[in-house]
Amino acid sequence: MAFAATVLTLYPEMFPGPLGVSLAGRALGEGTWSLDTVQIRDFATDKHRSVDDTPAGGGAGMVLKPDVLAAAVDRVADGRPILALTPRGAPLSQQRVRELAAGEGVILLCGRFEGFDERIFEARSIEPVSIGDYVLSGGELGAMVILDACVRLLPGVMGAASSGEEESFEAGLLEYPHYTRPVTWEGRTIPEVLRSGDHAKIAAWRHARAIEDTRLRRPDLIERHGGASQAPPSGAQREDRASKK
Amino acid sequence: MAFAATVLTLYPEMFPGPLGVSLAGRALGEGTWSLDTVQIRDFATDKHRSVDDTPAGGGAGMVLKPDVLAAAVDRVADGRPILALTPRGAPLSQQRVRELAAGEGVILLCGRFEGFDERIFEARSIEPVSIGDYVLSGGELGAMVILDACVRLLPGVMGAASSGEEESFEAGLLEYPHYTRPVTWEGRTIPEVLRSGDHAKIAAWRHARAIEDTRLRRPDLIERHGGASQAPPSGAQREDRASKK
Repeated sequence: MAFAATVLTLYPEMFPGPLGVSLAGRALGEGTWSLDTVQIRDFATDKHRSVDDTPAGGGAGMVLKPDVLAAAVDRVADGRPILALTPRGAPLSQQRVRELAAGEGVILLCGRFEGFDERIFEARSIEPVSIGDYVLSGGELGAMVILDACVRLLPGVMGAASSGEEESFEAGLLEYPHYTRPVTWEGRTIPEVLRSGDHAKIAAWRHARAIEDTRLRRPDLIERHGGASQAPPSGAQREDRASKK
Repeated sequence: MAFAATVLTLYPEMFPGPLGVSLAGRALGEGTWSLDTVQIRDFATDKHRSVDDTPAGGGAGMVLKPDVLAAAVDRVADGRPILALTPRGAPLSQQRVRELAAGEGVILLCGRFEGFDERIFEARSIEPVSIGDYVLSGGELGAMVILDACVRLLPGVMGAASSGEEESFEAGLLEYPHYTRPVTWEGRTIPEVLRSGDHAKIAAWRHARAIEDTRLRRPDLIERHGGASQAPPSGAQREDRASKK
């Protein structure tokens, strides 16, 4: 069955937007995944169709009302994980993306203004998620990010050759650097090992560079994943076995 | 002068997309910021308009050619920071967003496929940036995320009341939780302190909740910012002074 995405938003006209183009757009057209939007405002109960109100205790901005949010969520809840985009949420990880992509789909709740009434997280099973340590004007771009990350992992979308197994954040490492033709460009030459044709050496070099770059750029990833960076290079292993045949 | 954004991409039709709606869209319409797109393919030099080639050393996918990327970058480089979206980049932070928003604008280089030929980062002054620890099908959503985060901080966009000073990631803390009417919803009542009208108490409660939630959800933020979480609550201080008058 297709991966089913439902987005609850005050701006349904933003969708599919960038997700209607390129890889995600082709997969949407082919029915690999589906996308529905729900206008949160349709669940307002007063004649002004209010979705927000002033923050209790004062302060700037407006807060999305729990009753309206709950009514919208209740309409679409069907067992799929429900994620709300908020900077207070757990950071999105490639691991969580893989879990979501392996499931039936996802329901995404997009905030605007100052955010959600906190009680919605107590009263409904909603997972607060953040796509990064910065603040956006709403959750819609975050929803698109989650969907794009999931869709590219769906069977058939990237093709068998690009399983994503050697990508950044797998095994707690950044991906190794890439090079392509021309061999020499502006006096800079592709590292010799990559032109050697020795697959085991290439795999070992790439793994060493992945570790080195992660240590330099993202020591936090190595700390978080503990000994992952010390694991033997799976690519090299695979190549070693192949070359011993 | 308006904040000038230039996006280098293989999919210019994705823009402005979600950035043409709501807060960012209004600001774009009012000339608070400008958005240009550049089609990277226009800088290909062969008759097939190739922008990519196979990875040196083998492997899945295609790599964006350094000569084509450099030609595109050189056409638009004018002193604004040039950021390339890649999971190998430095994590985007609210601090970096504030720096960018305070400048003249930004040039954003969006990859597709397996990524950029690494030599482009050695040969040009380009900052690799990642919006989070997950992999997307291209850099376009990341570019939109950066622009949305910047635009909402531009003078006049959010209005004076919402300066963003009490937001998540300022001072290394998540924002405190929000509540709004109804006071009691599904048996859950807004915390009493928020209905007390005592501004000093409210500010102190919010600061305590910000620390507590950050400790529970994001101990990494507290570690990274050192003693920031121990700082006196600026809101409470302000309110204290006010109430002593």
